[in-house]
Amino acid sequence: MDLALHSTHINTVSWLIADWAHAIDDDRVERIAELMREDGRYTVRSRFNADRGLPLAIIDTHSAAQLRDRIRSMRMANIYQPQHYRHVVSAIQVVGQTETRLLQVRSSFAVFRTLVTTGDTIFFAGGRSDDLIDVNGPEPRFAHRLMTFDSRAVETLMIIPI
Amino acid sequence: MDLALHSTHINTVSWLIADWAHAIDDDRVERIAELMREDGRYTVRSRFNADRGLPLAIIDTHSAAQLRDRIRSMRMANIYQPQHYRHVVSAIQVVGQTETRLLQVRSSFAVFRTLVTTGDTIFFAGGRSDDLIDVNGPEPRFAHRLMTFDSRAVETLMIIPI
Amino acid sequence: MDLALHSTHINTVSWLIADWAHAIDDDRVERIAELMREDGRYTVRSRFNADRGLPLAIIDTHSAAQLRDRIRSMRMANIYQPQHYRHVVSAIQVVGQTETRLLQVRSSFAVFRTLVTTGDTIFFAGGRSDDLIDVNGPEPRFAHRLMTFDSRAVETLMIIPI
Repeated sequence: MDLALHSTHINTVSWLIADWAHAIDDDRVERIAELMREDGRYTVRSRFNADRGLPLAIIDTHSAAQLRDRIRSMRMANIYQPQHYRHVVSAIQVVGQTETRLLQVRSSFAVFRTLVTTGDTIFFAGGRSDDLIDVNGPEPRFAHRLMTFDSRAVETLMIIPI
Repeated sequence: MDLALHSTHINTVSWLIADWAHAIDDDRVERIAELMREDGRYTVRSRFNADRGLPLAIIDTHSAAQLRDRIRSMRMANIYQPQHYRHVVSAIQVVGQTETRLLQVRSSFAVFRTLVTTGDTIFFAGGRSDDLIDVNGPEPRFAHRLMTFDSRAVETLMIIPI
Repeated sequence: MDLALHSTHINTVSWLIADWAHAIDDDRVERIAELMREDGRYTVRSRFNADRGLPLAIIDTHSAAQLRDRIRSMRMANIYQPQHYRHVVSAIQVVGQTETRLLQVRSSFAVFRTLVTTGDTIFFAGGRSDDLIDVNGPEPRFAHRLMTFDSRAVETLMIIPI
């Protein structure tokens, strides 16, 4: 633990994580690709698989361009009920730094989903995120956003990135 | 985006937003009027209406005095099941500043409601808040608290302010 | 209210509260005993009892050693369905300081529980925590963690500490 490292960078990384959440919740999902480095990776997997060392992920994009493609496909090709997410992010900690000066950051998330037609809200997914964040440029960017959700039930149903 | 502005003021605005949440959750609702400027406005509206440009809001008080009246009426006139809220606030970002030096702040909220008699808890309302916060006085105050909830189902049921 | 005290210590106390949450959610519950002072107290009680001045608590350990015992018993003796918690912590405020220089800190929590076998998630417990935090040593530690949950329904069912 390095509390000084945490205190130095917590405002910057919290800002980045908040920006990601608001972009998705406000239906400006395209924005999240701007919050990645061009070579940035975005992975969403289940805790069940992670705990067993299984490599399967439900999203695993290896560049901002690939993430943009996925979002475009969501906008154009997918058919699904109109819905909003609401992210709750908390327990953000800067836990270390790599040799290449990327910050290692963990946080918790819970995502609630509201269907536009009925107004019904459900707990959609909760879990933790283990991020590598690049704070060396003019603005912070994700080098890797690795989200692990606690449930198994969400696997076939995730259309909008979390 | 102005990350320096965010970092300078995040602790102050987070404190204010937290104070609002605790006051309501602790059943000290009168306190929230003290967290407004005397000319402060408090608005609660649905995303459904906001997205369509409809002006209808379920709460829209234009001064701290008007908010105090509303709370007094809640205490004295309304009949409703004893209940507690629990706020979860996150993703707080200072996103800009007006010409009159009010901070523009956005955040996400989720409110859970527990009925005292049964102990049952439901997801009551989630959404975002777009606040104008005055940090020029001795203590921070809301100049406008504009809360937009994601669901439509809550509309006729909100007795206690969120 | 002392906003300067809050701003000075918020990063340190947020780090400690986050560490507690991640330890439990990651199934490293033993870690929370390390986050207590050796003479630290950990209490979990219902709001129903707290509001009536009833002393009954569902957990009340008076030292880190006693908390370790309780966790050991959970690991070895209890039989229960495999489950994960997910904490959401927010609205953290440093509200004062004792004569012995312990920080008085309040925060809100919501805990969601996922059953491993089914993947089902429920709202498990929400409430507030009133902590005394010692920041005078090399690392912050809880002198007292006093958690008060809003519901009454959880009382007989809590196996894993929150």
